[in-house]
Amino acid sequence: MKFASDNAGPALPQVMEAMIAANEGHAPSYGAEALMEELRARLRDLFEAPQASIYLVATGTAANALALATLSEPWQTVFCTPLAHIHTDECNAPEFFTGGAKLSLAGEADKMTPADLEHAIGQWPRGDVHNPQRGPLAITQATERGRVHSLDEIGALCEAARAHRLPVYMDGARFANAVAALGCTPAEMTWKAGVDAVSFGGTKNGCIGVEAVVFFTPENAWEFELRRKRSAHLFSKHRYLSAQMLGYLREMVWLEAAQTANARAAYLAEGLRAVPGAEMVYPREANMIFARLPRATHQRLRAAGAAYGLYEGPLESGPPEAGLMARFVCDWSIGEAEIDRFLEVAAG
Amino acid sequence: MKFASDNAGPALPQVMEAMIAANEGHAPSYGAEALMEELRARLRDLFEAPQASIYLVATGTAANALALATLSEPWQTVFCTPLAHIHTDECNAPEFFTGGAKLSLAGEADKMTPADLEHAIGQWPRGDVHNPQRGPLAITQATERGRVHSLDEIGALCEAARAHRLPVYMDGARFANAVAALGCTPAEMTWKAGVDAVSFGGTKNGCIGVEAVVFFTPENAWEFELRRKRSAHLFSKHRYLSAQMLGYLREMVWLEAAQTANARAAYLAEGLRAVPGAEMVYPREANMIFARLPRATHQRLRAAGAAYGLYEGPLESGPPEAGLMARFVCDWSIGEAEIDRFLEVAAG
Amino acid sequence: MKFASDNAGPALPQVMEAMIAANEGHAPSYGAEALMEELRARLRDLFEAPQASIYLVATGTAANALALATLSEPWQTVFCTPLAHIHTDECNAPEFFTGGAKLSLAGEADKMTPADLEHAIGQWPRGDVHNPQRGPLAITQATERGRVHSLDEIGALCEAARAHRLPVYMDGARFANAVAALGCTPAEMTWKAGVDAVSFGGTKNGCIGVEAVVFFTPENAWEFELRRKRSAHLFSKHRYLSAQMLGYLREMVWLEAAQTANARAAYLAEGLRAVPGAEMVYPREANMIFARLPRATHQRLRAAGAAYGLYEGPLESGPPEAGLMARFVCDWSIGEAEIDRFLEVAAG
Amino acid sequence: MKFASDNAGPALPQVMEAMIAANEGHAPSYGAEALMEELRARLRDLFEAPQASIYLVATGTAANALALATLSEPWQTVFCTPLAHIHTDECNAPEFFTGGAKLSLAGEADKMTPADLEHAIGQWPRGDVHNPQRGPLAITQATERGRVHSLDEIGALCEAARAHRLPVYMDGARFANAVAALGCTPAEMTWKAGVDAVSFGGTKNGCIGVEAVVFFTPENAWEFELRRKRSAHLFSKHRYLSAQMLGYLREMVWLEAAQTANARAAYLAEGLRAVPGAEMVYPREANMIFARLPRATHQRLRAAGAAYGLYEGPLESGPPEAGLMARFVCDWSIGEAEIDRFLEVAAG
Repeated sequence: MKFASDNAGPALPQVMEAMIAANEGHAPSYGAEALMEELRARLRDLFEAPQASIYLVATGTAANALALATLSEPWQTVFCTPLAHIHTDECNAPEFFTGGAKLSLAGEADKMTPADLEHAIGQWPRGDVHNPQRGPLAITQATERGRVHSLDEIGALCEAARAHRLPVYMDGARFANAVAALGCTPAEMTWKAGVDAVSFGGTKNGCIGVEAVVFFTPENAWEFELRRKRSAHLFSKHRYLSAQMLGYLREMVWLEAAQTANARAAYLAEGLRAVPGAEMVYPREANMIFARLPRATHQRLRAAGAAYGLYEGPLESGPPEAGLMARFVCDWSIGEAEIDRFLEVAAG
Repeated sequence: MKFASDNAGPALPQVMEAMIAANEGHAPSYGAEALMEELRARLRDLFEAPQASIYLVATGTAANALALATLSEPWQTVFCTPLAHIHTDECNAPEFFTGGAKLSLAGEADKMTPADLEHAIGQWPRGDVHNPQRGPLAITQATERGRVHSLDEIGALCEAARAHRLPVYMDGARFANAVAALGCTPAEMTWKAGVDAVSFGGTKNGCIGVEAVVFFTPENAWEFELRRKRSAHLFSKHRYLSAQMLGYLREMVWLEAAQTANARAAYLAEGLRAVPGAEMVYPREANMIFARLPRATHQRLRAAGAAYGLYEGPLESGPPEAGLMARFVCDWSIGEAEIDRFLEVAAG
Repeated sequence: MKFASDNAGPALPQVMEAMIAANEGHAPSYGAEALMEELRARLRDLFEAPQASIYLVATGTAANALALATLSEPWQTVFCTPLAHIHTDECNAPEFFTGGAKLSLAGEADKMTPADLEHAIGQWPRGDVHNPQRGPLAITQATERGRVHSLDEIGALCEAARAHRLPVYMDGARFANAVAALGCTPAEMTWKAGVDAVSFGGTKNGCIGVEAVVFFTPENAWEFELRRKRSAHLFSKHRYLSAQMLGYLREMVWLEAAQTANARAAYLAEGLRAVPGAEMVYPREANMIFARLPRATHQRLRAAGAAYGLYEGPLESGPPEAGLMARFVCDWSIGEAEIDRFLEVAAG
Repeated sequence: MKFASDNAGPALPQVMEAMIAANEGHAPSYGAEALMEELRARLRDLFEAPQASIYLVATGTAANALALATLSEPWQTVFCTPLAHIHTDECNAPEFFTGGAKLSLAGEADKMTPADLEHAIGQWPRGDVHNPQRGPLAITQATERGRVHSLDEIGALCEAARAHRLPVYMDGARFANAVAALGCTPAEMTWKAGVDAVSFGGTKNGCIGVEAVVFFTPENAWEFELRRKRSAHLFSKHRYLSAQMLGYLREMVWLEAAQTANARAAYLAEGLRAVPGAEMVYPREANMIFARLPRATHQRLRAAGAAYGLYEGPLESGPPEAGLMARFVCDWSIGEAEIDRFLEVAAG
């Protein structure tokens, strides 16, 4: 009953096999290996973006912080939601990589509307040397609360940013889950909607540790390479990053893994409806569920060894019927039997 | 005939096996997995340092830059040699991670004497707010020119640093090769000689991408963790770093791999003596050779597909007998037959 | 009719005289001059803090950014209000000087309650490496909206910060105006209430360009000096900073200037009550007024040459009776006649 | 007998008068005052550069660090001499302002040749992501050892930099002394020789604290303004910077002050020839003298109250006839009588 995070699960067999296959003889280092060339072509195909610049890093925070640093200046501000991973969960990595840019919050929780963005931009007048200067918009897809922006929502946000000539970055740590949820193409969810750069996350969806940063315009390429090197994120044995992602891309493994994870989350959400006192906090749209369960239910689940994130507390004392919010994440490896067992315990 | 770098070779089978074995079920993320606990104990044993703080990162530059940032302040200067990797090959990563510290050069090429260090320290008077403030000493073992500091040399440098209350960091990207060369223990080469922190390199010696940063005093632990996180070097699926290094440590694999690499380099060096016009630039002490070969010899080798670093040029035009310096690196996977073939081509 | 800012007014005659007097012969540079020693003693007396470390810089932003950098770490977050000068008007200077710390907003507009602070602190759990770490509280006195925290309010905020072991910095760009408003001593408004460091602003209240940064504990002294030097804020001809502030301190000039400025603002506020359609947005407590005036009134005032900050607009088109918020600042040099003239025009 | 530094002397009467004259009524802040407009026109005339972007800051280190940050990227290296002020006397300010750029040393002491520069540039191959990237050349005029680059020397260095498309910055803390020494125009010593940006120093030559940063191409203007603001170097009461420099420029005061200072240094140098055991270390070319005097002579001078920088020691013990290097700086306010007295004591 492991619902703590999609970064707690194992790697996909296809990813591991690709790693093993790559471990043969010598290969040029630092991304000059043939596998990277192959991967670049595959990702350009996948994104229908033959000019895209593509780079690999090993962590999602590296992808986010490096991409934002490339798209902004130290005296600018990034616009993001109050629950954006870059704001709440990266220990100031964006501020570090950008050289001291600010994050300005817009919207509520994990989403903002174009009006929210407009309001946030408006607080920093253009051309005034005193205030933070306007910089990139960052959105997360799927969001930190497991929701998925529709293509229209993405398009509208990009348009609002573009009206101020601000670039748009998409944190795609759960990109595959969002594509699976929307049933759209990667291109539709990114550059066709107005996104300038995206992280195509592998780690959470069955890789060991690899994220592709994709710039749809080639102009930032060399700067990104220098930033990656000087932040120590350029791998010498880079082939093992390329290999992972090639394994991930083979025969749509990436999409199937996300479809499975989303389906399991849907199954769990469905089951939770029958659990007495359970209440969904956000609609289930990808592979994460935020739900409130009675304290007594949590106690029972914890006692039975279930692992998941508890956002409210304390668990130990208080009215047993009080609802405490928790996060349940399904990765591709979670089975329905495991969920059934969880629901059984939850049902009491 | 692949002598380009020890980061171009494959991973050791034991490392790959450990990765595969680790890929089972769910595990806590971010270093909370059981494997990390096991690894920590193993490394403390290996270093005879039960209090040591131990962290894993995926690149040597991350290890160096994070350790130096933890040991210094932005207004200080690190002391290192003119050929130190941190100075020449990290695209200003130490300056970035430290928040703008300076690197002051001491000695010549890849080594310095205590007198060199004393001289370099002396140029920045203590207590003067105007000049850079004195910070850590950084030494590389084995060095960037393939040489190995003796225990006495390390001890003397540490003593000189300690006389000014400056901490000492050892860049151990080729730590194993140095231990193999000296026949000493890891403890003797580090804290017993006065070293405060060291990177225990795995990547170049048969891992996929993992380095352990070892602090012999626990006081820097929490700061290092925060620096690692905010520089995006904390892996979520951290178990794959732990696993690599556990595989690397099992049954002294790490030492044997280095012994093999050193032996191959010795074999190659021996063979080069018979190559007409060949001239060693630095004594061969670990797994790297710096030698000057006639331009014509280089042309022949390149034509035959030999891969190695050429430090002088141009290769294409000029007197065929002119000696051009090159670097030949042996990793554990290089066989004697490969070296024989290389020497045959070199002999002409 | 110059109400644009208290940084648009002239220097006090006593300040200018002190500058002239200091311009005699040679003097040690970089703060080693006798005047600085005298000033240090005077300020320690004024603050009843014989151990205080005291430094001069030339701008308020330098004072804020250097003090906050000294009190925090790059991975921490400063807590401040949404309208804090450090957040809205320093083009990311705090982020730059701290090496990338975050600013977390608490409260509304220019003030926060202890509960607001508690809430803001609570969003960043202690001991979690992922989120920004808790850092100093920064409050502005008088605030950016011209309000004055009572001693009780300051004490309560400091207590809330202290409960989490967080240091407290007071941005005292309008320190004198606040002391004049409260009728308290500098000590009561700072360390006696729990403040760890304060900027004692001179620039806005009749100096040319000088702010004293006062640390009530000496431990941060050397670090501040290094930070000041490396940020290029250590003056070589430092005597002209010391002289300014000595002139400012002589015979309570500083307090009288602030009392005058506050009294003029009170006089203006009183007069505005009679202006048709005028509406105070914040209560007048120091030397700034935020009021809404009809668009037509603004147009009349502007046409007559009145200078002040207009926060809403556009001025040019829209209903003439619509109220637009403006800021009116009085410095010591504003006369009642000037205000009378302004009110006459405003009255229409 | 005050030869410690030209930053220990008083301000020129014309500078002080301009300050007093500027202290009248209200004026727009942050550089929008009429005086700045006037000054901009004057400096553009002086430099024969009608398109130049011109900014004022209060310290030489701010001018240097901000200009270099504007001309470089964090992953680049600045080229300068081993004794460059930016390397030895700014506590890592360039590293801080650039966001972590490196300083690469070329030449010896205070000067480099084009060959030295070429050699230093050559160590960092172009297009290699691993090493520091090539950035601006920085030269100091007059140098930190009181020497003056000839126009040919400047031109040759600029040409060498330009061959690699590297911009050239001139640290002109003693710009006026160099112009006075060469008898050339400001334009000849800067953009006509290939310099891209220069600091036109006022502080050391009779101002209170003001330096003009002049960019001969306007493209860096807005970035410089943002950098100045976020580093807290934008003065609110900016008119007092403009006024200082206007007073300094009036009727060639700036040049006369430098001519006087140089002449006094020449007079002192001439006198030193007759002092037993005195030995010039560098030729006297501007307003600074580096000379070795016997320890006994130093002791006598110090006892008589002479102030100057002693670079070797100890003064207290050792052979009385041993020569110890010292620096003697003449500012405009030093009189010949003072020098006569000094020489008298020195003669013994």
